[in-house]
Amino acid sequence: MAAVTIWNEYRHERENEAVEAVYPDGIHEALASVLEADHDVRTATLDEPEHGLTEPVLESTDVLLWWGHKAHDEVADEVVDRVQDRVLEGMGLLVLHSGHYSKIFKRLMGTSCSLQWREDDGLERLWVVDPGHPIAAGLDEYIELPKTEMYGEPFDIPEPDRLVFSSWFEGGEVFRSGCCYRRGSGRIFYFRPGHETLPIYEHEDVKRVLRNAVEWAEPRACAPRTFGNRTTAANEE
Amino acid sequence: MAAVTIWNEYRHERENEAVEAVYPDGIHEALASVLEADHDVRTATLDEPEHGLTEPVLESTDVLLWWGHKAHDEVADEVVDRVQDRVLEGMGLLVLHSGHYSKIFKRLMGTSCSLQWREDDGLERLWVVDPGHPIAAGLDEYIELPKTEMYGEPFDIPEPDRLVFSSWFEGGEVFRSGCCYRRGSGRIFYFRPGHETLPIYEHEDVKRVLRNAVEWAEPRACAPRTFGNRTTAANEE
Amino acid sequence: MAAVTIWNEYRHERENEAVEAVYPDGIHEALASVLEADHDVRTATLDEPEHGLTEPVLESTDVLLWWGHKAHDEVADEVVDRVQDRVLEGMGLLVLHSGHYSKIFKRLMGTSCSLQWREDDGLERLWVVDPGHPIAAGLDEYIELPKTEMYGEPFDIPEPDRLVFSSWFEGGEVFRSGCCYRRGSGRIFYFRPGHETLPIYEHEDVKRVLRNAVEWAEPRACAPRTFGNRTTAANEE
Amino acid sequence: MAAVTIWNEYRHERENEAVEAVYPDGIHEALASVLEADHDVRTATLDEPEHGLTEPVLESTDVLLWWGHKAHDEVADEVVDRVQDRVLEGMGLLVLHSGHYSKIFKRLMGTSCSLQWREDDGLERLWVVDPGHPIAAGLDEYIELPKTEMYGEPFDIPEPDRLVFSSWFEGGEVFRSGCCYRRGSGRIFYFRPGHETLPIYEHEDVKRVLRNAVEWAEPRACAPRTFGNRTTAANEE
Repeated sequence: MAAVTIWNEYRHERENEAVEAVYPDGIHEALASVLEADHDVRTATLDEPEHGLTEPVLESTDVLLWWGHKAHDEVADEVVDRVQDRVLEGMGLLVLHSGHYSKIFKRLMGTSCSLQWREDDGLERLWVVDPGHPIAAGLDEYIELPKTEMYGEPFDIPEPDRLVFSSWFEGGEVFRSGCCYRRGSGRIFYFRPGHETLPIYEHEDVKRVLRNAVEWAEPRACAPRTFGNRTTAANEE
Repeated sequence: MAAVTIWNEYRHERENEAVEAVYPDGIHEALASVLEADHDVRTATLDEPEHGLTEPVLESTDVLLWWGHKAHDEVADEVVDRVQDRVLEGMGLLVLHSGHYSKIFKRLMGTSCSLQWREDDGLERLWVVDPGHPIAAGLDEYIELPKTEMYGEPFDIPEPDRLVFSSWFEGGEVFRSGCCYRRGSGRIFYFRPGHETLPIYEHEDVKRVLRNAVEWAEPRACAPRTFGNRTTAANEE
Repeated sequence: MAAVTIWNEYRHERENEAVEAVYPDGIHEALASVLEADHDVRTATLDEPEHGLTEPVLESTDVLLWWGHKAHDEVADEVVDRVQDRVLEGMGLLVLHSGHYSKIFKRLMGTSCSLQWREDDGLERLWVVDPGHPIAAGLDEYIELPKTEMYGEPFDIPEPDRLVFSSWFEGGEVFRSGCCYRRGSGRIFYFRPGHETLPIYEHEDVKRVLRNAVEWAEPRACAPRTFGNRTTAANEE
Repeated sequence: MAAVTIWNEYRHERENEAVEAVYPDGIHEALASVLEADHDVRTATLDEPEHGLTEPVLESTDVLLWWGHKAHDEVADEVVDRVQDRVLEGMGLLVLHSGHYSKIFKRLMGTSCSLQWREDDGLERLWVVDPGHPIAAGLDEYIELPKTEMYGEPFDIPEPDRLVFSSWFEGGEVFRSGCCYRRGSGRIFYFRPGHETLPIYEHEDVKRVLRNAVEWAEPRACAPRTFGNRTTAANEE
């Protein structure tokens, strides 16, 4: 049982009827309903003070989920700094779909995180490339999503530590759609599925991946991260 | 200008009319014609003594290409040992298509190198996933092969150091079709395209990749690989 | 609680009085006593039939520890094949000290696994390079072993997925002494400490690492590893 | 022959007599003298307009060297953005010594890049961990620097793509002192040696590494980095 905080931009759902029809309570609530049976779940949104990500909230978060799309630039840099620090200390981070362009993901990757996309409602098949990875536990050979937005290569990211999913799109493209990283003591998982006008987070396999990923990203006990001026030589201690 | 040795099993072409029609002089000669303008090219085949890979041949080889399919088990273990030693010392190795199941590739990977396949003559599109890699130099966004055998994930390999190509198949599958590794001082590139009944190695983009890959895999000057009993402490030298 | 099998060559302890004095019941029993409070532990040795690693034993093993030194070549290739297959299916493997030269480790790495060494009984300090890794949980900044055999770079291994420890030796050398790999669905950890004439496995920090590593290497639930001829296109299923 | 730009903070040398004594013309000039026989070398410093890194300068730079220490925060964010963009497009970047704490290195790594240090003028021995890497070409087993500042683990960086050097310090510490990364199409090399009060950049082996690293980091021909809205499906092209 982890302390999970789900962060959502929460603008689309209040401004666009098509989005509201799919996610009437916001994408964060849809995600919360996937995880709340097993975890202690809170939500936070862009328009709350400090975007809902105050120091006490982050200090008490084991795994943070991130969903943003059209207002990435409105996230304050000091909040991004704070989230980054917590990841380096060990907090898990799940970045979903259009969150690839969030400040926090770009910050942790060091690259542009650019890609190609097309809204076409075609079929996506996420192949399990690394069947031994715990995030793939309980899946079959692939996840099939009948209607999705297309994301295509090149995806400007560092080589993933482990690539769990690789997507096939009906229109002819491929994409590395499940990527694991470590930064400091924290685990990061980028997971492509999710679109504001499609009920992707109701798909059973997608829900399973989200649950697996939270479990995988939970902080582990670790050794001290001690930095700075080491006044005494190890040989003199 | 590198010293290139092209190894081919060379059985199909002599036993199967459909293969002979595409590669009348053997796949090794088709590959040689791609590289001989720029390199000093030799060929070697399974049925020669020591499979044509004697110590002097390997000692004077900068980059070895490997094509095998139905007689992997007939390659002698001592020749595999010899090739592995040379790779660790710095010789480049390009493993093509069904060579994923060769003894030498499995030896260097440490895994089963298993995958899924289907003969269906469908379209394959190899997307450039890592446009900055020198093996992709001069390509466009993807290579398109109108008719190929399908290879699908999971592909049981260690995480590639760099993944250059990821394939989309008309039938609905994906595959990591261009994978870079280093073992010892040697560079290894696995490249999927190539089938004994299809003229894949006449495709301009495939030829370009082969040329780029040979250049990439050439041995570099390096530091000594000194192992064994170090009788004197570094502090006493 | 994992099913742990500890494999030991068990020759030194019966043939050399200096070794027998340190490990009167064999190194396997010393290792067993570290793990048996938390796990279901069995042992197996070289001179048993099939080296004690029959199919039923391996099938029911979650994590295998490997200690060998002077008789690596006496391990039968079919047993090595069997161990490798089980690792690819998900069994964890801990390779200790001179086991770097075992057939199974060289098989899984694809390299020579050569290194430099010197018997000099000097001090070794294993620095925690990756404090967030679960294998380092509960340690301080480093482990200090007052008297050890030296192992020095270069160590001919593939780049580790994660490097947990890097050793400093009194004589002036360094060594990557805690290396994590994945092959197939299995997790592999190479851990340098351990010498047949020194009571390394009684050191509290070393025992802690062994316990952490067994926990880390335990098989996880995963997705199917399905290979072979895929007769139906995914698009037709 | 590459177009090399050497960036130096250039404050110490003008404000501190001990530094001026070692580097009377600035560290950038000492570095320039190492490279100018083989390359087209320019320098740029913090107090120039735009820190000397205008768009035209960066556009025409193949490899950028970075030396900073006490004024990292004075580097303007828009210049850091510009350098990052150029690295992603393919420009090489060599980060030296205390540059580990520069904005550009932290930006590209996504971590704190923290470490431990101690000014003690002890001996450092940089072991070649990866003798096959071109940056190690022409070196012996190790580089020995009789007097250096100590940098110790943990070093909060992502796992290097390749670790070329690992340092042993007389006081008892170790450090990953030569680390290769790729971000976008650009190659990055972090190299530890160098201190403002010690003539490190006059050491023959250090000079050799700098020359090798520039050659390694030069941009290569590559495939297009095309991102954005892909309006036509690949299957329709």
